[in-house]
Amino acid sequence: MGDQKPLILVTNDDGVYAPGIYALFKAMSELGDVRVVAPESERSAVGHALTMSDPLRVWEVDRYGDIFGHAVNGTPADCVKLAVKAILQKKPDLVVSGINQGPNTAINVIYSGTVSAATEGTLMGIPSIAFSLASFSKSDFDFAARFARHLAYRVLQDGVPQGTLLNVNIPALPEDQILGVKITRQGQGRYEEYFEKRVDPMNRNYFWLAGKKLQLDNDSDVDDVAVMEGYIAITPIQFDLTDYKALKNLQKWEIGLPR
Amino acid sequence: MGDQKPLILVTNDDGVYAPGIYALFKAMSELGDVRVVAPESERSAVGHALTMSDPLRVWEVDRYGDIFGHAVNGTPADCVKLAVKAILQKKPDLVVSGINQGPNTAINVIYSGTVSAATEGTLMGIPSIAFSLASFSKSDFDFAARFARHLAYRVLQDGVPQGTLLNVNIPALPEDQILGVKITRQGQGRYEEYFEKRVDPMNRNYFWLAGKKLQLDNDSDVDDVAVMEGYIAITPIQFDLTDYKALKNLQKWEIGLPR
Repeated sequence: MGDQKPLILVTNDDGVYAPGIYALFKAMSELGDVRVVAPESERSAVGHALTMSDPLRVWEVDRYGDIFGHAVNGTPADCVKLAVKAILQKKPDLVVSGINQGPNTAINVIYSGTVSAATEGTLMGIPSIAFSLASFSKSDFDFAARFARHLAYRVLQDGVPQGTLLNVNIPALPEDQILGVKITRQGQGRYEEYFEKRVDPMNRNYFWLAGKKLQLDNDSDVDDVAVMEGYIAITPIQFDLTDYKALKNLQKWEIGLPR
Repeated sequence: MGDQKPLILVTNDDGVYAPGIYALFKAMSELGDVRVVAPESERSAVGHALTMSDPLRVWEVDRYGDIFGHAVNGTPADCVKLAVKAILQKKPDLVVSGINQGPNTAINVIYSGTVSAATEGTLMGIPSIAFSLASFSKSDFDFAARFARHLAYRVLQDGVPQGTLLNVNIPALPEDQILGVKITRQGQGRYEEYFEKRVDPMNRNYFWLAGKKLQLDNDSDVDDVAVMEGYIAITPIQFDLTDYKALKNLQKWEIGLPR
């Protein structure tokens, strides 16, 4: 395609040295010109954070002897903003984020740095996809990367619906056990959490967050249910958080000003 | 009401020493027992971040000679989780966040630490309200605090719709110019952004994010439009980000597995 090759921005929240982003980089390189701009180190559960109070710095990173891309001392959302506004010569045709180690389904979506990077791309009018491998331990990104290429190719052809990003979760199963693809909705599963209180060597208290996920959905059109059943889940995500049902309800409250 | 006094958790993202949280603390003290658990310093634009990789520490903070509450070396969402799970003796009846210096309307909602604290309360099943004063400079929180008390009183009586938080934005106007209260939806206004590239004294480049808000809505039932017109805007916020319209559209794509 020569000069017509699409420009693809790759980022993540596990950091520029994570195995998942390398797998995604390789897969995207078969589709176009790829630029990696990613956090210098892990930025998990950062939500949709931006760095406002500190200067952002950018430097080149090598992997396997080649210049791989740029590291940023910021969040995934910072990386996408900075790439598009200050690093890349032109607006990318696609933003892909991942491949995350661990699922980004149900309530995890609102804490996810992986999804926030795709959100930022979408807000800038660029088709954007977040990819996650639904396992915290398995590190074989091979099939997930092939699916990423497959879907990215389609999105480069057809775009995504306006104002929407695709949040993709891929089961960590052998390829022949993956049953297919489902278009899903975000589940309601949350965490049952607690804090472990510990004492450091200086005799001061500190706390670690711990907990386990509660499965609150059953329908197989829900993201985490589909993944558990062996399907790749694709959830379209948008950013109008208004609760329209509650809105009508609250209008009946007739809240006035304080006297 | 004696033992029946409601327990109110107060937090924010401007930090435990901000003027807005003190105004909110005073206002809530007229309604119940108040506990402040807030970030040690400003945590603006942190989105819905959680601290997973670092230990959280908590310490008592004095203001005006009295023990005011607890500071945490974490995000607003961390503060609410930690307060409910490790600091407070019982589950609070209400979580209030703010009063933020600056609006949290339109796209700002997804970056807002103030809103994320109320989100965390809602996820734990506690009625939760985020309060913001729609000015970055004016620091007179008096009327906003009175409105916070007025609305919190109502919510303590009637609760909020299940799974919803109230995102309240109050115009920074003299009280007699405030026209009333509107139940609103989240606007689509975004930022036109750029990065200022500068050189530090060590001759290294760094970047600051800069930009201005684009006003993309006109309807006065939209959060930031209502505030500009002189109304207090109350937007009910929920956390299912699924784009249901796009979901139907994507099902027609018939995305299969890669060959």
